[in-house]
Amino acid sequence: MRRASLDSVNCSIAQTLDVVGDPWTLLVVRDALWGVTRFDEFRRSLGIPRATLSTRLRDLVDHGVLEQRPIEEGATRSEYVLTRKGRDLRPVLVAMLQWGDTWAELPTPPVTLVDSTTNESLDLTYVDQTSGRALRDIAVGRRINTHSASAAEHSATG
Amino acid sequence: MRRASLDSVNCSIAQTLDVVGDPWTLLVVRDALWGVTRFDEFRRSLGIPRATLSTRLRDLVDHGVLEQRPIEEGATRSEYVLTRKGRDLRPVLVAMLQWGDTWAELPTPPVTLVDSTTNESLDLTYVDQTSGRALRDIAVGRRINTHSASAAEHSATG
Repeated sequence: MRRASLDSVNCSIAQTLDVVGDPWTLLVVRDALWGVTRFDEFRRSLGIPRATLSTRLRDLVDHGVLEQRPIEEGATRSEYVLTRKGRDLRPVLVAMLQWGDTWAELPTPPVTLVDSTTNESLDLTYVDQTSGRALRDIAVGRRINTHSASAAEHSATG
Repeated sequence: MRRASLDSVNCSIAQTLDVVGDPWTLLVVRDALWGVTRFDEFRRSLGIPRATLSTRLRDLVDHGVLEQRPIEEGATRSEYVLTRKGRDLRPVLVAMLQWGDTWAELPTPPVTLVDSTTNESLDLTYVDQTSGRALRDIAVGRRINTHSASAAEHSATG
């Protein structure tokens, strides 16, 4: 499951994949977003071997996505809680969930995202805050920021 | 780089990862979104071995994310073009790009997304279309859709 590091590539997408490009890793983050904190809960939820889960949790702690802390003062057992950096992965998972809802051959979307304070369904869409238009209505291009040291060396940074 | 299939898991995120959970695969999709269509262009852009790229392209064609077609009528060489299903991955890549821009240790964001017709910078944010609120201001929960056959079997579907 390990792959060559992409972290030298001058591209924010490649950098993100270098942290969360492993499928199990993103599923750990998904579970953490749903409130899972304990090793055994992750293992039960994901059905992965202990060693695999240990590695993924350690990588996520090393990358600052999860914080590992004792379940209570002085306890030896740990819990794993998303940091700000980890919670910021929410849009990635929302985008994946929506794509799967649309394109996976599931009989029905397994979950609906809701506002947890009101329990109202959410209808999340990428919108350009400047123009108010939805991403789906925009032809997106990119401007390569030439003050970025090695941008010019890559024909398809991003 | 291959992993156990996740496609039996009743979760839209897992289903998405089953198609695009490999980092190279998402980088191929990224390049395709930027207009890359030819094998050699992908190879040059990504710097990956021919065999690896061949496998990724074939998988993406098999999954209906890319369409393979002759570069011109009767030609033997192919080009690879995103299908509707493939273009629908744009939000996943936008979300990854934004996370990398925020959290990767790059000196500056390598690219800025623009409206390709006006060349204006885009400020893309997930918004709940019903309430108009930004995702970052919402505490998101989930409702498990019990009419989904095996939803109840998984403690952390999504």
